[in-house]
Amino acid sequence: MRILLLAIIGILQFQTSAILLHAETGRDAWLRYARLKNHALDKYAGLPASVVVHGDSAVLEKARDELIHGIQRMLGRTLRIERAPVKESAFILGRIFSLNRYISETSPPVIANDGFRLASVESGNTSSIVIMSPNDRGVLYGVFALLRKIALEEEIESLNEIHEPSAPVRWANHWDNLDGTIERGYAGPSIFFENNNVRQDLTRVSEYGRLLASIGIHGCTINNVNANPRVLQDDFLPQLARVADTFRPWGVRLAVSVDLSSPEKIGGMGTFDPLNPAVSKWWETRISEIYKRIPDFGGFTVKADSEGRPGPSSYGRTPDDAANMLARLLKPHGGLLFYRAFVYDHHLDWRNLKNDRARAAYDIFHPLDGKFEDNVIIQIKHGPIDFQIREPVSPLFGGLTQTASAVELPVMQEYTGQQKHLCFLMPYWKQILDFDLHTNGPGTYVKDILAGKSFGSELSGYVAVINVGMDDNWLGHPMGMSNLYGFGRLAWNPDLDASVIADEWTRLTFGKNPKVVETVTDMLLTSWETYERYTGPLGAQTLTNIVGAHFGPGVEASERNGWGQWHRADEKGVGMDRTVKTGTGFAGQYAPPIAEIYELLETTPDELLLWFHHVPYTYRLNSGKTVIQHIYDSHYEGAERAEDYVNQWRSLEGLIDEPRYGRALKRLEFQAGHARVWRDAVCNWFHKMSGIADEKGRVGHYPDRIEAEAMDLAGYTAMDIIPWENSSGGKGIECKAEESCTAAFRFDGDAGWYQMDVEYFDQNNGQSRFRIFVNDQMVDDWIADDMLPATKPGGDSSSRRRIGGLALRAGDEIRIEAIPDGLEPAGLDFVSIYPER
Amino acid sequence: MRILLLAIIGILQFQTSAILLHAETGRDAWLRYARLKNHALDKYAGLPASVVVHGDSAVLEKARDELIHGIQRMLGRTLRIERAPVKESAFILGRIFSLNRYISETSPPVIANDGFRLASVESGNTSSIVIMSPNDRGVLYGVFALLRKIALEEEIESLNEIHEPSAPVRWANHWDNLDGTIERGYAGPSIFFENNNVRQDLTRVSEYGRLLASIGIHGCTINNVNANPRVLQDDFLPQLARVADTFRPWGVRLAVSVDLSSPEKIGGMGTFDPLNPAVSKWWETRISEIYKRIPDFGGFTVKADSEGRPGPSSYGRTPDDAANMLARLLKPHGGLLFYRAFVYDHHLDWRNLKNDRARAAYDIFHPLDGKFEDNVIIQIKHGPIDFQIREPVSPLFGGLTQTASAVELPVMQEYTGQQKHLCFLMPYWKQILDFDLHTNGPGTYVKDILAGKSFGSELSGYVAVINVGMDDNWLGHPMGMSNLYGFGRLAWNPDLDASVIADEWTRLTFGKNPKVVETVTDMLLTSWETYERYTGPLGAQTLTNIVGAHFGPGVEASERNGWGQWHRADEKGVGMDRTVKTGTGFAGQYAPPIAEIYELLETTPDELLLWFHHVPYTYRLNSGKTVIQHIYDSHYEGAERAEDYVNQWRSLEGLIDEPRYGRALKRLEFQAGHARVWRDAVCNWFHKMSGIADEKGRVGHYPDRIEAEAMDLAGYTAMDIIPWENSSGGKGIECKAEESCTAAFRFDGDAGWYQMDVEYFDQNNGQSRFRIFVNDQMVDDWIADDMLPATKPGGDSSSRRRIGGLALRAGDEIRIEAIPDGLEPAGLDFVSIYPER
Repeated sequence: MRILLLAIIGILQFQTSAILLHAETGRDAWLRYARLKNHALDKYAGLPASVVVHGDSAVLEKARDELIHGIQRMLGRTLRIERAPVKESAFILGRIFSLNRYISETSPPVIANDGFRLASVESGNTSSIVIMSPNDRGVLYGVFALLRKIALEEEIESLNEIHEPSAPVRWANHWDNLDGTIERGYAGPSIFFENNNVRQDLTRVSEYGRLLASIGIHGCTINNVNANPRVLQDDFLPQLARVADTFRPWGVRLAVSVDLSSPEKIGGMGTFDPLNPAVSKWWETRISEIYKRIPDFGGFTVKADSEGRPGPSSYGRTPDDAANMLARLLKPHGGLLFYRAFVYDHHLDWRNLKNDRARAAYDIFHPLDGKFEDNVIIQIKHGPIDFQIREPVSPLFGGLTQTASAVELPVMQEYTGQQKHLCFLMPYWKQILDFDLHTNGPGTYVKDILAGKSFGSELSGYVAVINVGMDDNWLGHPMGMSNLYGFGRLAWNPDLDASVIADEWTRLTFGKNPKVVETVTDMLLTSWETYERYTGPLGAQTLTNIVGAHFGPGVEASERNGWGQWHRADEKGVGMDRTVKTGTGFAGQYAPPIAEIYELLETTPDELLLWFHHVPYTYRLNSGKTVIQHIYDSHYEGAERAEDYVNQWRSLEGLIDEPRYGRALKRLEFQAGHARVWRDAVCNWFHKMSGIADEKGRVGHYPDRIEAEAMDLAGYTAMDIIPWENSSGGKGIECKAEESCTAAFRFDGDAGWYQMDVEYFDQNNGQSRFRIFVNDQMVDDWIADDMLPATKPGGDSSSRRRIGGLALRAGDEIRIEAIPDGLEPAGLDFVSIYPER
Repeated sequence: MRILLLAIIGILQFQTSAILLHAETGRDAWLRYARLKNHALDKYAGLPASVVVHGDSAVLEKARDELIHGIQRMLGRTLRIERAPVKESAFILGRIFSLNRYISETSPPVIANDGFRLASVESGNTSSIVIMSPNDRGVLYGVFALLRKIALEEEIESLNEIHEPSAPVRWANHWDNLDGTIERGYAGPSIFFENNNVRQDLTRVSEYGRLLASIGIHGCTINNVNANPRVLQDDFLPQLARVADTFRPWGVRLAVSVDLSSPEKIGGMGTFDPLNPAVSKWWETRISEIYKRIPDFGGFTVKADSEGRPGPSSYGRTPDDAANMLARLLKPHGGLLFYRAFVYDHHLDWRNLKNDRARAAYDIFHPLDGKFEDNVIIQIKHGPIDFQIREPVSPLFGGLTQTASAVELPVMQEYTGQQKHLCFLMPYWKQILDFDLHTNGPGTYVKDILAGKSFGSELSGYVAVINVGMDDNWLGHPMGMSNLYGFGRLAWNPDLDASVIADEWTRLTFGKNPKVVETVTDMLLTSWETYERYTGPLGAQTLTNIVGAHFGPGVEASERNGWGQWHRADEKGVGMDRTVKTGTGFAGQYAPPIAEIYELLETTPDELLLWFHHVPYTYRLNSGKTVIQHIYDSHYEGAERAEDYVNQWRSLEGLIDEPRYGRALKRLEFQAGHARVWRDAVCNWFHKMSGIADEKGRVGHYPDRIEAEAMDLAGYTAMDIIPWENSSGGKGIECKAEESCTAAFRFDGDAGWYQMDVEYFDQNNGQSRFRIFVNDQMVDDWIADDMLPATKPGGDSSSRRRIGGLALRAGDEIRIEAIPDGLEPAGLDFVSIYPER
């Protein structure tokens, strides 16, 4: 009996947490259901008191419980669960065929799967709200939609709305490894795996399923596309089934990434040739074993012949051979086969100016159009390269008119700040989705292709690489989840404005204070362009270390290697000639009206100039500026804007709960410092390469700066930073002494109030301590304990400590004392001192 | 070297914490030094940038560091420490004799010890701020005063202020036991002791010393007045010295409570007769050993011949014999002897109507006036009994004209809600301090007696029983520290308005949002009268269980026993006749003008009527109401007001940080429920005793209530609650079954939105679980895990769970399922259901 009762308590914990007050950690994301204020409570006072569900399923139960939970938290009322229709006003939930009798219409409109209708129904004295859908999942989506309206305090009297998803496929991807690490994950270990098994406690998976459902995402591939074959092993399938069971009530289908060489690696076969019947048989058995345990299994995601992954090319086969073999086996069960178009040769000869990685996806997949099974979805990164800060739309979207395709979008911000920088990607994604590829003549918008409207596909849609982790706030940055929210909203309705999404997310996440809403939405909406300004200009891509962490600056990292992310900058000019006439011919992959625009220097928009053309630094943009001056100016503007974000955020102190306020402030302060590192690295590199001075005299001149290597050092020794441009003066200092080191210098400015920035190297393999003294007085101390993606001093580890309110006098000795820790040598780059603003 | 550096880091931790953001726990109390907003920052932009200290002591160092810390947190600026006078503007700190040269006055005013002067000094281009005092501690106090001005955003240009403490003695008392428990402590274990030793880590003691210093308290007796003789043992003295060393930099002197029988108990002597020379010799050695280790030791606090404590009466000696023996030994070292006037016979014969415990202090100590050494301070509770919610001023303050006296005030709220109820005592204490005893004719105010003005004493003052604990917020209730703040402020300046103190404390503690300030100060300023209304009316004292926890209601607990806290309520009337003419004669202990007022029924103020007179229930008050109706009305008003506090506080959601907001809300909700328990207990008891109905028909009629014992019980059994009036209907139910029990009933009201209150018994010896179902639907669950001072069901453990927003329909089954835990039988009293407001 005790066991039974405790089990009941376990099940009902959700209910309890609904009532208790709790700190804001971000774990509830946009589903906080904050209690409404009095005037809003009055607005909803007339809502029904009961909820009636027609039908019986785990999804419908979640729909009902979520409605109860949300209403309880926002309005403080507990809806009655009624098992049978009642004579009073009620929330009535169910599938259309059960509920049509409530709607007195002769021919009620047809609603697409996952779509729903919200309708007020008057009858006698009662005024009910009906939430109906062709399927259970749609009912759940309807509940979330209704709760969102209430959370946003929208009018819900006289409802009569039908909402349908733009695209049939809205999918999540995770690059989680079975050992619990996450490739390109920035918020703690995997919520799915640990120690090469599925986690015992799947609480976070259920919470995540709820978040996905609330924005209409119905499928999730949970493991790294660089897949471990173990996911298909016998002992692993029951574990996968546990994840599927956890997702199922939220209407989310489980999928996994598979290694095409699995028949060889774990099947003990001598081959994985997709056209070998024994190989196919092996897959058939695996798939059948999966569906025994997971009847609604979503399917496979495949990365093959890409970045060293095995693929059909080993046997002279093509992607359609591999994809179709698997797709045919999945089809009887209703499974999908996501085949990634991210296939390219990473040993390209950089000396051949005709070579172009950007061509690869189109060159490989366009000829195969029409050869794929109808449950194959070609998963295409939004741009031809790889999640860069600015790329043109992948021409492959227009190159597959007889094949289902899905866009792959990076919620996790791999190349856009990795949750350390604020970068709200909706304005960018909107440009992509609204782009007219002209494939079928004018009006062939990417969003229409993905919706299946342009070419009639029934399985197109949206995939996001999300990579949430065990951190309380899922993604790391307290504002990072805006990209997941936005992804779901756009996949549902790509016609939504980015500003509407930013507004919704902000109000749901941080509350409705007008100043908060105005400030946060402004920060969100400008953040992508800001990040672009201080990283990669004019379509030259994110100028980061492409063979490393993809985080800090690394201008030359993309050159002179086989990876093909070239920007071709040299002494004379910059940019990659991708024209048909003189370049790689990539521009010709677009339909003529687009190809013509990109083919010509004059018609190519400034922001993609260097993507399509190689120009001299003195080339004048449409803006009137030279390319080189644009590089300088935009980097200074971007870094300045990043600094503004700190001030904007500070103006919200007291208006946002301290835990989230403090966490975001810390990231924004880091971003402002790191933006300066970016600015200087890129500007100095181009300055040195071009030999052209900054018209405004900023680049290379830092009058406030004292280089660490120029200080009086005790214990510290100078070191070269590689690449040189990632530090000030190309050098820093490191403490190789066992105990501690000091670096000191004299201040010789006028007496006054000053700020001091200390640029130091915060690696992830040690926690050095720093202390700053003015004469004998310690004015600051800190521990370098941030987790940046770097084990060496350089652009990935460069971090800034800002010390304000220092009263300095000429002759003051400023001394930095440091204790290195682990493999981190308490590295320093420079100090900059300037009057307080 | 590493050791040295780590030591430095240890010392400087304070500095670091100043910079980091941190959650609001209440640990900083009123010394949060919240960052000022921009417009206020501008106001102080012209402050000096340097600080110069003249002199060298640990206290002056704290003064300097506190100034730096406060300015840094509030203004974001780090003052320069200058070792020698500078030519620029500076904060100049030091004793008067070192600093008079900065003030160009021929005869600068004399300042009392601990007093200080804040002065702006212009010289050439410089504008300095001088903080000077005759002693180092006064400089520290001056720094705290200046920082408070800045925190409150007061004008500090052209400063020229002298502040002096009203009284020379301003002392803290703690009733901490050496095992770490605290008698009448409500916020965790002792900050001083654990396991019969002083704690190893005295961080909290240092933080506490800082808080005391910031409000001018300069001494602290750290152990229970029911003293353990162990404090005087050889191995304990070095431990005491560690506490003294921790307090010293904050200008706080350590004192201890001693057991007068120590010579017998730990000295191995056959006697502790204070007049025995060997006893005196024993004490002399102990005192000398103490001063060897603690040269500034403050002295002893003595509770003797009181509540079973040994005292001079064992040898036929009088308090002056004991006090003077110790005082003479302390005097050469500068030590004080606090002798508590809380001496009374707790075996009084209650049948003798002339007996009166209230007389005891005056009867015993007044005849001894003039016989005490001049370093003896008679420590007098504010009222003649014991920290009751309402008592007249102790007449003993007027009865000691040749002896130093100090008032003893209860910061810890022993009889006023014990940190579970909000009760800001300043309005009460102000009445006491402003009371004119007429001893020397009109104008003999208590505050003047304590200031030494009335009778010329040089060692009078203020003592508070504080009993902070290890809980983050020191006292338990997030608003509890207002009483400590108020105590310090009044001891310094008893002319301050309670409203000024409330305003200061609120702004320093919760910030300056006008709505917050208005709401919190209103709650504070009305809270004492509110608590009085639902507990003890008309001077009948707090009608609590005086032989138990002093927490919940216990109307009869004070009657028919020897403790003498009688209110003499019977079938006919209530009140204690303390007149000279017909009663105990207590009124005659006051000077004639006061005695005459209290002697007559007509002139006695209503609020003290029952203290001085026994009257029939039908007696009409000056207000026009009968006594019995006043009892009913005031209890209903008080309980209603307590309910209002919850709503007032809720209106501040989002304006106060969540941790403190949530913690306070929980306490206020408890208070509102407990106030109803109080209301019903007192009203029902008097109703039954008097047989007189409530004119408004409320008492005894609870139409919304369903008694637990009247429900359908499974496992649960009915039990009597003792005393009967502490539960509804005199009964409750308990679950003695091993696993779980249920209690159920049918709702038969109209359909609508309802609130439901579940009154249950939350003991401290178990954590029962409760779940509430409406039909099959669980609508709430919780764990009874509050720490209330009770191991049995009754008025001390009665607690309320409020469940709002329930949609009920006639015929609904409401079911309570409970799992008892430990010795707690998941007790229930009743459920009350009423339409939502």
